[in-house]
Amino acid sequence: MEIQALAKQVAQAQPFTRYLGAELLEVQPKAVVFALEVRPEFYQHLGMVHGGVIAALLDNALTFAGGTVLGAEVLTVEFKVNFLRPTRGQRLKARAQVIHAGKRLAVVQGEVISEEDGESYLVALGQGTVSKV
Amino acid sequence: MEIQALAKQVAQAQPFTRYLGAELLEVQPKAVVFALEVRPEFYQHLGMVHGGVIAALLDNALTFAGGTVLGAEVLTVEFKVNFLRPTRGQRLKARAQVIHAGKRLAVVQGEVISEEDGESYLVALGQGTVSKV
Amino acid sequence: MEIQALAKQVAQAQPFTRYLGAELLEVQPKAVVFALEVRPEFYQHLGMVHGGVIAALLDNALTFAGGTVLGAEVLTVEFKVNFLRPTRGQRLKARAQVIHAGKRLAVVQGEVISEEDGESYLVALGQGTVSKV
Amino acid sequence: MEIQALAKQVAQAQPFTRYLGAELLEVQPKAVVFALEVRPEFYQHLGMVHGGVIAALLDNALTFAGGTVLGAEVLTVEFKVNFLRPTRGQRLKARAQVIHAGKRLAVVQGEVISEEDGESYLVALGQGTVSKV
Repeated sequence: MEIQALAKQVAQAQPFTRYLGAELLEVQPKAVVFALEVRPEFYQHLGMVHGGVIAALLDNALTFAGGTVLGAEVLTVEFKVNFLRPTRGQRLKARAQVIHAGKRLAVVQGEVISEEDGESYLVALGQGTVSKV
Repeated sequence: MEIQALAKQVAQAQPFTRYLGAELLEVQPKAVVFALEVRPEFYQHLGMVHGGVIAALLDNALTFAGGTVLGAEVLTVEFKVNFLRPTRGQRLKARAQVIHAGKRLAVVQGEVISEEDGESYLVALGQGTVSKV
Repeated sequence: MEIQALAKQVAQAQPFTRYLGAELLEVQPKAVVFALEVRPEFYQHLGMVHGGVIAALLDNALTFAGGTVLGAEVLTVEFKVNFLRPTRGQRLKARAQVIHAGKRLAVVQGEVISEEDGESYLVALGQGTVSKV
Repeated sequence: MEIQALAKQVAQAQPFTRYLGAELLEVQPKAVVFALEVRPEFYQHLGMVHGGVIAALLDNALTFAGGTVLGAEVLTVEFKVNFLRPTRGQRLKARAQVIHAGKRLAVVQGEVISEEDGESYLVALGQGTVSKV
């Protein structure tokens, strides 16, 4: 599927996505899933995953979801994130989907889920706007 | 100043803050400044600083600003960020201040500035809510 | 159902809800639906429903959804709204649901739908935080 | 000043702005102020000004601020509002300013102030995105 290959190529071409180790797991028209293995360097001082990691992963998912409808040349205009529960890891997934798209702007919604010892639960919820460059 | 020392100690105790290399430059009652030297691993595929880096730096500034009025045991409930301009670096500063604080919640506002070749310009604007744990 | 009766009583006790003519149609644990007949005084200068009307209806839905889990004494800490499409009416529905609730705070998500000549489409999307007083 | 006259004409041409009684007090390049006399029909059930009124007034200020740089044909893409304190009135002012503007999009920041018995205090803080149509 062409859009999948292109999106994965863009994700791999992002130094920061590689620096985190985030992987673009799934790409569908209007929706993507990123996964991230939690490493010790992702914590804040209380041993929970830092909000910045969660926000960065969500940002990636929102942007790439927007890209599936607007094309590869997009940027995120803005987003909002609510942090629902702290988590220690071990694996995070960020899912995002396009709710509405016009010619230039797409409105996207996303969530970050933590998978830990066989359980999974929601840790963050987001909403944003992606634009063609 | 006690609050400064405590805030800097917390920042240094955060593995992710160290992983990015973000430094807590200033701490005042109700306001903080973080600085971050842009490194090659912070870019997205077009050679601009990744939105996730900017969001993570802003998140840190918002949370620590909230902490100056609510105490060290705080977490960010939510925030929103608008990305104003792409930037290549070289140095980012995130400033945040408390606009209003109640007993448990503080509303904070922040901005990320890029300093590049002697010029500085705004790259992101944020607003959020910080809560006592 | 007790929660339904209480929520409807609160909605009717709100002068602004009555001033708009918004009606609390459905109340379930974690979810509510408000309906609003569009009147000529709700437009902006181009004959579309004013964003303020849509934001106000969404605000009501988010707050009442939060109230279904946190109790009658709640207030909305914050919310974000994306406007997806302009609409002329004739009838708006705002649906909101609780995505996560702790002891004091609930994270809520909502949408505003326009029903016009037998068709219905999404006009706004929202996300926010509701708190116990 | 031409921009002032145009903006005031647009505000007066909005049925919902008139329905609330909101008045466009000041218009400058990049900034506006709306004022609203609080009337009994603006309250919620506890005698405080309804969040929907505050959100609607803020929405107006954000949109018109964006219009001062993007022109009369604008719409608000999205905004976020934090409610800082409940208020009973008597008079609200919403101030908004453009923080950054590109060719099509402007990022705006705003606040709502309550004036009551000679005192004035902040009741809401907002941030949003305005677009050319």
